Amino acid sequence: MLVHTINEVREQVKAWKKEGLSVGLVPTMGYLHEGHRSLIEKAVSENDRVVVSVFVNPTQFGPNEDYDDYPRDIEKDYDLCSDAGASLVFNPAPDEMYFPDRCTTVNVEGLSKGLCGAKRPVHFGGVCLVVSKLLNIVTPDRAYFGEKDAQQLAIIKRMVRDLSMDVQIVGCPIVREADGLAKSSRNTYLSADERQAALVLSRSLNKAKAAMEDGMRNASEIYKVISDEIASEPLAKADYIEIVDSETLQPVETVEKDVLVAIAVFVGKTRLIDNFTYRV
Amino acid sequence: MLVHTINEVREQVKAWKKEGLSVGLVPTMGYLHEGHRSLIEKAVSENDRVVVSVFVNPTQFGPNEDYDDYPRDIEKDYDLCSDAGASLVFNPAPDEMYFPDRCTTVNVEGLSKGLCGAKRPVHFGGVCLVVSKLLNIVTPDRAYFGEKDAQQLAIIKRMVRDLSMDVQIVGCPIVREADGLAKSSRNTYLSADERQAALVLSRSLNKAKAAMEDGMRNASEIYKVISDEIASEPLAKADYIEIVDSETLQPVETVEKDVLVAIAVFVGKTRLIDNFTYRV
Repeated sequence: MLVHTINEVREQVKAWKKEGLSVGLVPTMGYLHEGHRSLIEKAVSENDRVVVSVFVNPTQFGPNEDYDDYPRDIEKDYDLCSDAGASLVFNPAPDEMYFPDRCTTVNVEGLSKGLCGAKRPVHFGGVCLVVSKLLNIVTPDRAYFGEKDAQQLAIIKRMVRDLSMDVQIVGCPIVREADGLAKSSRNTYLSADERQAALVLSRSLNKAKAAMEDGMRNASEIYKVISDEIASEPLAKADYIEIVDSETLQPVETVEKDVLVAIAVFVGKTRLIDNFTYRV
Repeated sequence: MLVHTINEVREQVKAWKKEGLSVGLVPTMGYLHEGHRSLIEKAVSENDRVVVSVFVNPTQFGPNEDYDDYPRDIEKDYDLCSDAGASLVFNPAPDEMYFPDRCTTVNVEGLSKGLCGAKRPVHFGGVCLVVSKLLNIVTPDRAYFGEKDAQQLAIIKRMVRDLSMDVQIVGCPIVREADGLAKSSRNTYLSADERQAALVLSRSLNKAKAAMEDGMRNASEIYKVISDEIASEPLAKADYIEIVDSETLQPVETVEKDVLVAIAVFVGKTRLIDNFTYRV
């Protein structure tokens, strides 16, 4: 079922809860790919009913970002959701989600300053706002997020804990193309040359991971492995390369606990992200 | 029943909801008086079960405010709640509510800058945080707040709307002592002389209301009626006197729509507030 209003979602979820059914939520911005499908399938396997939200959320885009250009295809999205076993697709218009005189903000301050937050200052405030709303609208038992957006996942986990929201946040592994590129709706922006060049993200991370498995612990050295690899690709330009504590997202000098190794790279004009968590 | 943990509240509320019972929440900082009792009684009249939270919330006190001195008496509070018909009293310790590495903030920016927010810069952020948590813990159908804290009530209504929280916020009239002083847990700080001087709050507001009923519409003139009256009381000192739009809380020059007339006054060292809404 495809619905566009908050009330329709609430009524359906209340009917399910009355029957004692569990509910999973997969929040997305649409233009769904195999990564999203893996989230939906996991949610379907763990809940009686699954809601997928498809909403290109304006509040998480900065003024010079790609809100208008972000790809949209609700019909194809709806088919994928149905095929993957979702029960409800929620596709609100922006004015269904936001009042003109909205003035409430939600921020996870300690985790939003570095990585993508440093480059996209309004981004995570918008993410927290829309995820808060979606959790309040759907009131799911579990909500599913991809590990590709590692900082987002850490922030949402912290927000849910700090605000005592009664929902389990489930992180799901990155899904990749056969050649290693992490699936992303933004991959659609890439020309053929750029598509090839974009492999530098996973390649540089694989080199870092191999070096760490061989015993490399100094963050500066790990940084250099990645930055050298990215520098070798003429169409690519690093936006950031970070080696941070996987929980606090604070930069580390030496790898002594679990770390998140996260990068953002411009390939042409398209900004792509990728990461892995290294467990000590 | 008196409980101290989030889990105990959640289990009890889930059991009630399974039975189809409606739930009301009355959030308080304890040291309950007749004003709180009126909230609890209204909640009891409108819901099958009522939860009262008693929590002196550290995050809504500034560094030089009266967090440590704020009066507490959980046994007396519990008796009043039971007597008024509440089913559950939730009295958490601060570390049950807040993790040491908490870093999530909730703010209603447009409504928090003036009035008490201008004088107590961290106050409403703390209120929004704790009320968000309490609403997420109790998941009530309705939550009850006193109109004495008029700015708080406006902020919470806006927060609930902006975050799509599925709860009805109910405002309840100010309860006063026989001589007009608005009931407040902080009245306990007053010496006998100060208690007498504190009548200047309701007296000055009554004069303003009478002037408005006689046709006064100019905010500066209304301001002067109140400030002259407060100035006549040697033990009192105005902290603010505001005539604002009752919804946006923005100052008005002329009363053309419903306005909130709100004051904060130091009586000795004790800061008291009072207000009325004038409906055009």
